[in-house]
Amino acid sequence: MARSSPTLDELVRGVLAGERRLLARAITLVESERAADEPKAAELLNRTAGAGASYRLGVSGTPGVGKSTFLERFGLRRTAQMRRVAVLAIDPSSRQSGGSILGDKTRMAQLSRDERAFIRPSPAGRTLGGIARKSYEAVLLCDAAGFDDVFVETVGVGQNETLVADIVDETLLLLQPRSGDGLQGIKRGILEAADVVVIHKADGPLKEAAETARVQLASALRLMRGAPVPVLTCSSLTGDGLDELEALLNERRTNQALEERRREQAVRWMWRLAEERLLAWLRGEASDLEASVRSGESPRGAAAELVARALKRAEEP
Amino acid sequence: MARSSPTLDELVRGVLAGERRLLARAITLVESERAADEPKAAELLNRTAGAGASYRLGVSGTPGVGKSTFLERFGLRRTAQMRRVAVLAIDPSSRQSGGSILGDKTRMAQLSRDERAFIRPSPAGRTLGGIARKSYEAVLLCDAAGFDDVFVETVGVGQNETLVADIVDETLLLLQPRSGDGLQGIKRGILEAADVVVIHKADGPLKEAAETARVQLASALRLMRGAPVPVLTCSSLTGDGLDELEALLNERRTNQALEERRREQAVRWMWRLAEERLLAWLRGEASDLEASVRSGESPRGAAAELVARALKRAEEP
Repeated sequence: MARSSPTLDELVRGVLAGERRLLARAITLVESERAADEPKAAELLNRTAGAGASYRLGVSGTPGVGKSTFLERFGLRRTAQMRRVAVLAIDPSSRQSGGSILGDKTRMAQLSRDERAFIRPSPAGRTLGGIARKSYEAVLLCDAAGFDDVFVETVGVGQNETLVADIVDETLLLLQPRSGDGLQGIKRGILEAADVVVIHKADGPLKEAAETARVQLASALRLMRGAPVPVLTCSSLTGDGLDELEALLNERRTNQALEERRREQAVRWMWRLAEERLLAWLRGEASDLEASVRSGESPRGAAAELVARALKRAEEP
Repeated sequence: MARSSPTLDELVRGVLAGERRLLARAITLVESERAADEPKAAELLNRTAGAGASYRLGVSGTPGVGKSTFLERFGLRRTAQMRRVAVLAIDPSSRQSGGSILGDKTRMAQLSRDERAFIRPSPAGRTLGGIARKSYEAVLLCDAAGFDDVFVETVGVGQNETLVADIVDETLLLLQPRSGDGLQGIKRGILEAADVVVIHKADGPLKEAAETARVQLASALRLMRGAPVPVLTCSSLTGDGLDELEALLNERRTNQALEERRREQAVRWMWRLAEERLLAWLRGEASDLEASVRSGESPRGAAAELVARALKRAEEP
């Protein structure tokens, strides 16, 4: 049935009523790259903009660190508290497949059957910026749909971190305990962006290594950042450490200057979007200049001419 | 004496005559961020654009791998062949000091006294893109000044590699042999960008480790890139391996589709420059929209409005 497009009014109503099926359609609309969908998507976002009551947490970590297992366990814990939980993924590596390879439902089997949960795989897209922008707008829609928690899962590869920080209120970095070199392999950029660090898989034979890593990392981070950064251990298998983590996150949330952070995020997204579109438009205007540069004109001269064209016209009344 | 600004004609003549003092002034002019210098800089670049006879080699590697030592040794080898050699640095980490900390002359003591060599420290700048753009234009000026070799030295940190590849004809990655974990610590992005890999410091007690690393790396790169990538060992201390490296670079140069590569580089730089300037202009036009977004309008709607303003005006006759 659901293949005919819902109208704008239906989407607005459905999102605001928290209906998961219509929320999914709404997200599909804002993810669309078709120019024809643009006015409807913009209007949908404007008409649903608002409440901002959700708690938005980024969860990053390299593949294999157990992000899905953690999100399943932590998500179920939250739904058991009657909270409604959305999980969105940002995975630039999955762009070819148009989403995660196995589909996120397979990865979080129990959570995906929970009626208080909504799970959305990574949007497809050609650029990391484009994928992240779609995720940002999906977060806004989940917020409008009344979700209490929006978890944004991302593969920590060092480039996404800044973009993710512009989507969420806090970022959690999952690491795993390793024997031997410990911190050696972790990229600085990833560590710099994390608000809270969790040594995951702290169970069984790795429990001791996790504690060692926690101590090492806490002192390394204090040095690197000039201020203490919370580092915890936890296990999604045994549940150890999840009480402490949740208490910490709740406490931090109370203390955050959230509104200001979100306003600045919105301004940065406006700029990113405007840039993206303006450049797309400009590309259509510059084929003769590309040709001049190919035949030897200096790139700087051609750039000046291109800018002058746009601005000369723009300055006219 | 030389503190009064040379005229445009003097700069053009000086660059084309290969006079190092005037070349240095010309580079300073194109590095300037003062709007008043812009027309003169653009004109200088246009009037000196041309020959493209230089060989442009990027040399990257993490701090401590011996880039300066290598460049000194390799540079002296080239000047001994009566080639004129320019060494330019790109070091985003040195932006605070407005150039490298000790100054590049200290680092390449012998080469800097060689009358056929010209050494230029890293330009200052707020963004990596800005620093790289300045280096690109400095390469063009060195080319116009008749240098046979232009070496662009850069700290390999994973982000610069794409920009550097848009400046040079070939990129050389220096690595050092390590005991134990070998390839573990090298970032994928750095390896992906390199045209030729050199295991440096292949002398004394490290000679054997260097050979082991060479074999490992050659097979890892073949797997990663799907085609063989040349991996050599050399020592700037003993000079071992430099004959082979030079022969390889000469051979590769003969086979390169150089003109096409440089044309595409120029087009990409035109775009980067036009983007940079247009966005700077736009920022002045958007303060009311920033305010709307801060008070709750969706970023997408505001971005559309911003773009519409620029384009509506631009579409008028």
